[in-house]
Amino acid sequence: MNNPQLDQDGRLRHLLSIEGLPKKILNQILDTAESFVGVAEREVKKVPLLRGKTVCNLFFENSTRTRTTFEIAAKRLSADVISLNVNSSSQSKGETILDTVDNLIAMHADMFVVRHSQSGAAHFIAKHVPPHIHVINAGDGRHSHPTQGLLDVFTIRKYKPDLHNLRVAIVGDILHSRVARSEIHALTSLGVPEVRVIAPKTLLPAQVEKLGVHVYHDMKAGLKDVDVVMMLRLQNERMSGAMLPSAQEYFKTYGLTQEKLRLAKPDAIVLHPGPMNRGVEIDSSVADGAQSVILPQVTYGIAVRMAVMAMLAGGQSGGTQS
Amino acid sequence: MNNPQLDQDGRLRHLLSIEGLPKKILNQILDTAESFVGVAEREVKKVPLLRGKTVCNLFFENSTRTRTTFEIAAKRLSADVISLNVNSSSQSKGETILDTVDNLIAMHADMFVVRHSQSGAAHFIAKHVPPHIHVINAGDGRHSHPTQGLLDVFTIRKYKPDLHNLRVAIVGDILHSRVARSEIHALTSLGVPEVRVIAPKTLLPAQVEKLGVHVYHDMKAGLKDVDVVMMLRLQNERMSGAMLPSAQEYFKTYGLTQEKLRLAKPDAIVLHPGPMNRGVEIDSSVADGAQSVILPQVTYGIAVRMAVMAMLAGGQSGGTQS
Amino acid sequence: MNNPQLDQDGRLRHLLSIEGLPKKILNQILDTAESFVGVAEREVKKVPLLRGKTVCNLFFENSTRTRTTFEIAAKRLSADVISLNVNSSSQSKGETILDTVDNLIAMHADMFVVRHSQSGAAHFIAKHVPPHIHVINAGDGRHSHPTQGLLDVFTIRKYKPDLHNLRVAIVGDILHSRVARSEIHALTSLGVPEVRVIAPKTLLPAQVEKLGVHVYHDMKAGLKDVDVVMMLRLQNERMSGAMLPSAQEYFKTYGLTQEKLRLAKPDAIVLHPGPMNRGVEIDSSVADGAQSVILPQVTYGIAVRMAVMAMLAGGQSGGTQS
Repeated sequence: MNNPQLDQDGRLRHLLSIEGLPKKILNQILDTAESFVGVAEREVKKVPLLRGKTVCNLFFENSTRTRTTFEIAAKRLSADVISLNVNSSSQSKGETILDTVDNLIAMHADMFVVRHSQSGAAHFIAKHVPPHIHVINAGDGRHSHPTQGLLDVFTIRKYKPDLHNLRVAIVGDILHSRVARSEIHALTSLGVPEVRVIAPKTLLPAQVEKLGVHVYHDMKAGLKDVDVVMMLRLQNERMSGAMLPSAQEYFKTYGLTQEKLRLAKPDAIVLHPGPMNRGVEIDSSVADGAQSVILPQVTYGIAVRMAVMAMLAGGQSGGTQS
Repeated sequence: MNNPQLDQDGRLRHLLSIEGLPKKILNQILDTAESFVGVAEREVKKVPLLRGKTVCNLFFENSTRTRTTFEIAAKRLSADVISLNVNSSSQSKGETILDTVDNLIAMHADMFVVRHSQSGAAHFIAKHVPPHIHVINAGDGRHSHPTQGLLDVFTIRKYKPDLHNLRVAIVGDILHSRVARSEIHALTSLGVPEVRVIAPKTLLPAQVEKLGVHVYHDMKAGLKDVDVVMMLRLQNERMSGAMLPSAQEYFKTYGLTQEKLRLAKPDAIVLHPGPMNRGVEIDSSVADGAQSVILPQVTYGIAVRMAVMAMLAGGQSGGTQS
Repeated sequence: MNNPQLDQDGRLRHLLSIEGLPKKILNQILDTAESFVGVAEREVKKVPLLRGKTVCNLFFENSTRTRTTFEIAAKRLSADVISLNVNSSSQSKGETILDTVDNLIAMHADMFVVRHSQSGAAHFIAKHVPPHIHVINAGDGRHSHPTQGLLDVFTIRKYKPDLHNLRVAIVGDILHSRVARSEIHALTSLGVPEVRVIAPKTLLPAQVEKLGVHVYHDMKAGLKDVDVVMMLRLQNERMSGAMLPSAQEYFKTYGLTQEKLRLAKPDAIVLHPGPMNRGVEIDSSVADGAQSVILPQVTYGIAVRMAVMAMLAGGQSGGTQS
């Protein structure tokens, strides 16, 4: 049972998916991230952990937002960052992905942050690279988006430290969401006893129960007494497709309003991976309300990405950077 | 009378427009810029004033040239620069401008350089951000382009130190020019006694006299005995529109030639914000001639932008960077 | 006889083409590059030679790959790098190339890396700039791509140190290849006694023999007993044009297979400038085989570009950077 994410000594070598990561590593990432939260609040938001290292943002699928978070994280670690939007480059000249990767390795790139529309792309690259090169999956098809899953549990842990005592609901397009898959794996691995998914049948994968979740089609029943509500983004292409009647209809049934949120525990928190469709999956009064932790998610996302990069680069704990 | 550009202690908090900036602040920016002119001439063109700070270039309207000047200025101050061309990013995913801004603030961005095709966009963002975040308007619609106005008066002051004794002519498309508006406000605020605008009626805003300028339709009369000629760029879309007969015709009437320039004072200087349409609003022999200070404008533009960023970030005078 | 690439003291001022560079300078670049190979293998891959300098990537023709190599080289020298994709910028606003360049010089750019689809573009810019500004040609039309030529001979020298005793074959589209021209000049200047070109008549320039090469149309005859095989990329547009029957046909006649390679010396090495068309000009088993030095070329390409930039910036030998 060879785990491609760990090296021989059981340390993190790549971050490809939450699935398959031992609980110990998950906790190590979260604890390391804790030490990086403070860096962003310093006068000089920079530590020299990755100085002289070259981080390649290899984006086969455009995403300014995700690219920016990794770019900021890498620069705060003092790395040199090279951003390649691969649609507009050698791929169009017929070069294979592995040739592109091999070339960047020959230029002494140290780390790849990979986003691709096809599931498994980051695994494919990770399998190919030599031992001293590290790969971070920044979203592959419908499969995985592990740093998003990690920042979500990091955020939950900040507000609800006792994960073993939580009821969490994930609401929306579970079927097409790599975020949902990563969240479910992170939550169950860390011992959250009850994870619910709330969605219409058309937006649920077959046999979703096998992931260890409870399925609800009725949002009111699903939100009842939960501690955490994790909303998902509804992709525009789903709204216009035959899959859903209309954005308005969706909002009525599965959009999170103050009224529906009242069914959760009074101190429940609300998460959303962004970018939000206000008025589609979430009402503005909730997004901007007292229970929303959507912007803290973004803040912690930088700390989590710094932690992952630092661990991959040096195996060092984040505590040593001062 | 709450001035959004100043904090409670009367220090610069945002740079949104020249309009509304006290003369004292204008002079403070120009004096601070003076101290940064020397930085670009050093062997190592870098000062650590913004080290560990994150400057976001938030360009909703593409402008490689302006973005480059801010990027160079920020990097010479040792900031980390994140450039977002927002057309190609989250905006297309339905996220609002303020959500984009809030996300970047959650990532601990310190400063936004904003360019937008709509007047008021930078003000809108400035009104929204918390006190420790700073906004620089890099051009909003037809409204304002304050760093351009500042670098123009900085350049004029360099060659003609006694502003109280100057006659200045601004020539061209005043109507659509945010540059012209910023120049007029800067010049009149700093006590230039006579500012003329020279343009056909179709390229003048209604009631332009209320800005404190003298209106000329005849270029020869308008250039008579001026100390400074500020040419404006004629946008291509105006030339092809019904507004003007033709580029050739425009050149004949309002293009600056050596012959027309001879009507100004013998030591008059010529400015242009760039990029130039040679042979349309300005003849090459003038653009490259002895009276042209067009390239010094570009040089001083970096110093002015460094000064503004340094003042916003630290309230420090540029003199402390050694 | 004024050589635009050298200053009055015979030192490198611009790198525009291999043609016209004295052998002494070529060797100096290669020797300096030698000292930079080690930098990429250090823990911190950075030297401060260009700290505080501004390097402008001025790409009038898009090339993510080449731009990336120069960006990495400049960043490892601690320069600030500004990348301008000039198609999407001021050029479209009617500004001339020289105005764009003058503006960047006014912003105190120190070095230009220029890629342009027209032959002579880098020379044109080099002729225009003041003495303290340096220009590197990163590919101009069909004319020259000197850093590619240099990294190729650097790679050959690494594996076959005695250049005076080599037989080298360059195979493929010589006609449209700036790489081939640069390679031929580099090899003959450094004293390689026999350089062969192998191509169909339609892909050879008129009077190619005048470059000092031996012409072969038959690949088997041409590869006989050579020490080095330099494959060229076949541009897609050639394949679809009337110039060639088909990619398959081309592969059969001029594609490098293990079988054909066996005609060369047993220890012959294989080079390719990339990006490769596997199965068109080169078989995968050769590209990835034991005789391939295609990825070392990429590695040495960074060292060569660092060497050129360091020499231009300071005239310093690479040995002083420790």
